[in-house]
Amino acid sequence: MARSPSGESVLTRAVRIFEAFGPDRSVLSLSELSRRADLPLATTARLVDELTRHGLLSRDELRRVCVGTRMWELAERASPVLGLRQAALQSMHDLQAVVGHSTQLGILDSDQVLFVERLAVPGSTPNVTRTAGRLPLHASASGLVLLAHAPADIRDRVVQGPLPGFTEATLREEHALRRALAEVRDRGFAFCPGHIHPDATGIAVPVRTRGRVVAALGLVVPNDDVAWSLIRPLQVAGLHLSRALDTAQVS
Amino acid sequence: MARSPSGESVLTRAVRIFEAFGPDRSVLSLSELSRRADLPLATTARLVDELTRHGLLSRDELRRVCVGTRMWELAERASPVLGLRQAALQSMHDLQAVVGHSTQLGILDSDQVLFVERLAVPGSTPNVTRTAGRLPLHASASGLVLLAHAPADIRDRVVQGPLPGFTEATLREEHALRRALAEVRDRGFAFCPGHIHPDATGIAVPVRTRGRVVAALGLVVPNDDVAWSLIRPLQVAGLHLSRALDTAQVS
Repeated sequence: MARSPSGESVLTRAVRIFEAFGPDRSVLSLSELSRRADLPLATTARLVDELTRHGLLSRDELRRVCVGTRMWELAERASPVLGLRQAALQSMHDLQAVVGHSTQLGILDSDQVLFVERLAVPGSTPNVTRTAGRLPLHASASGLVLLAHAPADIRDRVVQGPLPGFTEATLREEHALRRALAEVRDRGFAFCPGHIHPDATGIAVPVRTRGRVVAALGLVVPNDDVAWSLIRPLQVAGLHLSRALDTAQVS
Repeated sequence: MARSPSGESVLTRAVRIFEAFGPDRSVLSLSELSRRADLPLATTARLVDELTRHGLLSRDELRRVCVGTRMWELAERASPVLGLRQAALQSMHDLQAVVGHSTQLGILDSDQVLFVERLAVPGSTPNVTRTAGRLPLHASASGLVLLAHAPADIRDRVVQGPLPGFTEATLREEHALRRALAEVRDRGFAFCPGHIHPDATGIAVPVRTRGRVVAALGLVVPNDDVAWSLIRPLQVAGLHLSRALDTAQVS
């Protein structure tokens, strides 16, 4: 594989370019991109030119750079999460219509929750999740569900930390976290009042395919006395989605 | 940029790898991939190894290759179509709940319709569209809407063909196509009974942001006498989505 003087391959540098973009940084000037990707300006310019020729990046009328439609198309049309997402959308909408709060679907990826779909209710409870966004496993309700059902080696690695705190309520101690995980397996849901934001409660349930937990379905609702009453509708939606996945044979 | 003996850059070859995957080909053996990407087996193996290390590809338990979660995440989190898709999902679900047929949202990309979202009703009308799938502009209802409002140079290029046929009803002649486009602009919708499949009718309406057509919202319904009655609900959903986009300031 061809390498730069620093020993990095072209592909590694291209990945660095794409990693510089994010939900809040979807349009970048060439110099911002060079800084965020930690690549020389000339290298960045050359890579952006070639990636733009392939449609993987594009430039707006101000010559700023953004991710190209072709990049989205190549990733999405054979997406490893497309089947799960499409099967889940109906259950998520039904749930959202009934409870009136944001719903999200997360999978376990690289010791984090990766949210593959999110239906937001604008202006409702504070909610830091985004589609294709990530959260630590120990801090979020979806993360606790995924961690509770993860292989033992992943669970042991994660509970030993680091366990960064978001609020006073975040589980930051191995023993408390292990107890919480046992409770999630036992009760069939995770209930996290104020774990990520003091005003929000995260609730999540497992989504199964042929008995195996493949995702967590979650709600973000106000941190108040009503939150408990939303566990049951969420559980119903989770069972419904699991059944739909079994029928569709999405793995 | 580093080049192979054939003069192709690493990035060009990596794009060829990703292009080999598709909705019906989401898992490929190394030799299938090599054949479909038209690259030597050793080159393919080396590229797959490096792309797998970056998480852009992954391998299943049978060592077959598929698109990686990281590739999806990088494309999706700064996706150029994320804002449009998320704004559209609610309108699409409301429409689907009322009419009970598959709904889809398409944009104009490289002289084709690229479908950025699709809510399917399983087992309903024959429907060839897929999320991140494409159709020719002249043949589909969504395509006619996008073409009718496209810049004159794109319109002139497309109407001069080639105009491949799907059925007897596909518009394959420049004059008829130009007349159909004028009618779409005039009436505010495209109505295409049997243009892609004899048993299906495509209907589509423009989606506007600040007056400019940015997408087409479409329905695929049975090709029967009821199809006409579904134009009005689709128009209402299209206006609703346009208003939501103006409020959200998605461009």
